[in-house]
Amino acid sequence: MTTRSWWGWGNVEHAVTPEERQKLVDRVRAVLPNADLTLHDPPDPETLTIPKSRIQPSPLYSTDPLDRLTHARGQAYRDVVRNLAGDIGTVPDAVARPRTEQDVVDVLDHCGSNGIAVIPFGGGTSVVGGVEPRDIDGPVVTLDLGHLDRVLEVDPTSRAARIQAGVLGPDLEAQLKPHGFTLRHFPQSFEFSTLGGWLATRAGGHYATATTHIDDFTESLRVVTPVGVSESRRVPGSGAGPSPDRMFLGSEGALGVITEAWMRVQEPPRHRAGASVRFADWGRAVEAVRAIAQSGLHPANCRLLDPAEAFLNAGSSQSVLVLAFESADHPVDAHLRRALELCAGGEVVEGTAARWRGSFLRMPYQRDAMAQHAMITETFETACTWDRFAELHAAVTEAATSVLEEVCGAGIVTCRFTHVYPDGPAPYYGVYAPGRWGSLRQQWDEIKVAVSEALTGAGGTITHHHAVGRDHMPWYLRQRPDVFGTALTAAKAALDPAGVLNPGVLTTRSTAGPAPR
Amino acid sequence: MTTRSWWGWGNVEHAVTPEERQKLVDRVRAVLPNADLTLHDPPDPETLTIPKSRIQPSPLYSTDPLDRLTHARGQAYRDVVRNLAGDIGTVPDAVARPRTEQDVVDVLDHCGSNGIAVIPFGGGTSVVGGVEPRDIDGPVVTLDLGHLDRVLEVDPTSRAARIQAGVLGPDLEAQLKPHGFTLRHFPQSFEFSTLGGWLATRAGGHYATATTHIDDFTESLRVVTPVGVSESRRVPGSGAGPSPDRMFLGSEGALGVITEAWMRVQEPPRHRAGASVRFADWGRAVEAVRAIAQSGLHPANCRLLDPAEAFLNAGSSQSVLVLAFESADHPVDAHLRRALELCAGGEVVEGTAARWRGSFLRMPYQRDAMAQHAMITETFETACTWDRFAELHAAVTEAATSVLEEVCGAGIVTCRFTHVYPDGPAPYYGVYAPGRWGSLRQQWDEIKVAVSEALTGAGGTITHHHAVGRDHMPWYLRQRPDVFGTALTAAKAALDPAGVLNPGVLTTRSTAGPAPR
Repeated sequence: MTTRSWWGWGNVEHAVTPEERQKLVDRVRAVLPNADLTLHDPPDPETLTIPKSRIQPSPLYSTDPLDRLTHARGQAYRDVVRNLAGDIGTVPDAVARPRTEQDVVDVLDHCGSNGIAVIPFGGGTSVVGGVEPRDIDGPVVTLDLGHLDRVLEVDPTSRAARIQAGVLGPDLEAQLKPHGFTLRHFPQSFEFSTLGGWLATRAGGHYATATTHIDDFTESLRVVTPVGVSESRRVPGSGAGPSPDRMFLGSEGALGVITEAWMRVQEPPRHRAGASVRFADWGRAVEAVRAIAQSGLHPANCRLLDPAEAFLNAGSSQSVLVLAFESADHPVDAHLRRALELCAGGEVVEGTAARWRGSFLRMPYQRDAMAQHAMITETFETACTWDRFAELHAAVTEAATSVLEEVCGAGIVTCRFTHVYPDGPAPYYGVYAPGRWGSLRQQWDEIKVAVSEALTGAGGTITHHHAVGRDHMPWYLRQRPDVFGTALTAAKAALDPAGVLNPGVLTTRSTAGPAPR
Repeated sequence: MTTRSWWGWGNVEHAVTPEERQKLVDRVRAVLPNADLTLHDPPDPETLTIPKSRIQPSPLYSTDPLDRLTHARGQAYRDVVRNLAGDIGTVPDAVARPRTEQDVVDVLDHCGSNGIAVIPFGGGTSVVGGVEPRDIDGPVVTLDLGHLDRVLEVDPTSRAARIQAGVLGPDLEAQLKPHGFTLRHFPQSFEFSTLGGWLATRAGGHYATATTHIDDFTESLRVVTPVGVSESRRVPGSGAGPSPDRMFLGSEGALGVITEAWMRVQEPPRHRAGASVRFADWGRAVEAVRAIAQSGLHPANCRLLDPAEAFLNAGSSQSVLVLAFESADHPVDAHLRRALELCAGGEVVEGTAARWRGSFLRMPYQRDAMAQHAMITETFETACTWDRFAELHAAVTEAATSVLEEVCGAGIVTCRFTHVYPDGPAPYYGVYAPGRWGSLRQQWDEIKVAVSEALTGAGGTITHHHAVGRDHMPWYLRQRPDVFGTALTAAKAALDPAGVLNPGVLTTRSTAGPAPR
């Protein structure tokens, strides 16, 4: 049995140990001798005053204060430090836990006719304010889909499975395993996020190339909207008009509630080949990754760590490329050999891949442990075309470094590629800086603005796989074509006439009406 | 110099020769001894009475009757036999040939404020009535994008090119070649269709797996709509809300006019490996293709011909699988070897692939030549999951055979797979039957209804890569989730308030308003 942390990442039982914490503190102190690393314990949730619910409890609605508190926000650094400071902000008035699709329909009907906002909630690991009832007038119900957690049907011939949206990653894989299949979608949040959350946010998985997003594994969707249930036809491919699924993928609960999906599954890999390559020169490392991304070899993993990232998380002081190929059907050694041929200027090294994997899974726990010592640990992710990467990288690094200097007096900026495409990489930036206890949220906000301006200004997308939520809205609205915003706003108005679905996400009044010519 | 046929496929100079025609007639007579194969010549277009234009000629609008006639419909069998019969139906009132994007804006403005329908027109090879002014009240302008035919920019680092929508396939490849790149999107219509047409109809290319549709090569789109110009950001991947491009891909001119796109290009293949495999047993052939589709080997070609298709077009009397791998980076012989291992029950044969390619490109010319002898030659394409294929195949074959029997007294039904996916194939059916001169269109309509009912009734999509147009609307409206129809109709109303863009395609009044629960 495990207990979810009310204020931070994951399970209480898996939080950092005192020894692990001490190691982290020592490492930070080595780099930032003047940082105030006093430990701050989270408040006792019982002592927090949670506003009275404006909704009557019912078999469908739980108004238990702690239940509402643990559904009040996601898992961004911004969320964690507000929890640590006892700043609980707005909390949903009730939590609904549908056991059937009809329950979802009933909640939407009740909320629609009573002007109650509905925030669909999967695992609650949003890092962009996607599940937070921020700036919403009137009562709010959080729709926790956790009870819709079953694999309903497996089609072994077509290698597809009909799966309920509320299932968590490990439970999903456990239910597919007896059938000899796996979805193999492993975001960093895998253990605590759900299929529905992945679909609604276009989550990125562990595949570094080709099938990078959950979109690529989606065969059909079933979505409950206020005006009816939408179910797309199960077909492997279609040219019949714009794709219905592509409208709901990434809709972040603003157009409907995804209740089920037919997902493409596969056999677990039988053949594997991997290596890590060290580069003294970052530029040559980037060129090698571009060559591999454009080779058509499709590595399952192709993660480039810059020297700072490699130093912090893979025990190397040079750039490291972690390469891996996998197949359920055929040997992939030749693929790896060819990929290594493309790594001009690199040197194969041992062990870094394993060390990287280890820290990858601990990162969110470590982030929260260090937040208790007023350390600011945040990530920014984007994607851009290869021709713009050098410029974007310089702009983001410069913007991050100077805002950290300005806001925190010092800081470290790291970069890695999480996914790569023939036409460009998806760079992922980490910032580590000493914050001021009591001002962490404000400091985060300043840093977020500066870096987001830099990466969107340099041609990147505001998000490659963390979604828009509320934190990314200002930049999303600038990046999105106004005309598409007009169409999306009209579609939202048609499907959600009362405007109760996750208000403030994806569409706002400011995007309504005809776009400027 | 070549001349486009006014009534049928392609160039007059490349029409079937008398010898080729005689061979075809003899082959048909061998199978259908009682067929009346009298040759009928097309009418002289000068003798056809073309309704007077309701639009004033202007520098932007040509009202030349022959110009309007050659823009009146696409290249479906239904279109060709109506032309042959001198049944020209409705003809656009004018043809506009924009030379700049501003011209497109001006046409949309003028048509929008004067209630003139606008039908975007690329190469005019629609086989679904997509460019035909059918059942439109009021005047119609056909917007021929043929002058927007340039590759404007090439980004060799990201391997992408900014290309105008009106460029024809060969011209597009010719402009990319000096840069060392190719798009490698080769639909059967390649020579006579345009990039914009491919994008607006989600065209299928020659890649049998993975990157089957033009969608997969699209980095960003520029679209002129009545409320403004939409340009999506050039990024290799994004999770920022529903994809803007995916709304315009497949919009068939009903939401806007695609004027430019950034497309992912590649180096031409240096490594190739291919083979043809003969199967005595169709079921085992299908199983082999499924195994290859699920292997992750990604053949560039994986086309399965049933015995009838193989007999007519590849000189074999058994099912034939045409397999090919290609790469610009690495040898693919191992891929082919593994794919052949998966062909249990098959036998490698020589030459059929070349023969197949040859007839593939002649098919449309031969279809039209035989239409002059009152032969009905039509194709139906779909996609379904593997678990439903046997049932769909039986249903379609049975429906096609009996409707041919009923309508034509006899006929041949063939099947091939044009594309395959891990979760299902895209079967492509051909029907060949002796028609009655003077009733060919009505006979086609009866056959179309019977087969379309069968393939959508058995779970297939009404189209995998021929789009919806006007001919597929009844089945598209049944296949499309009503709720998505509601959203798409609202989006259309927001982008095209005057409802002038390709009216009758994708949305109709009947799909407006809230969907039934």
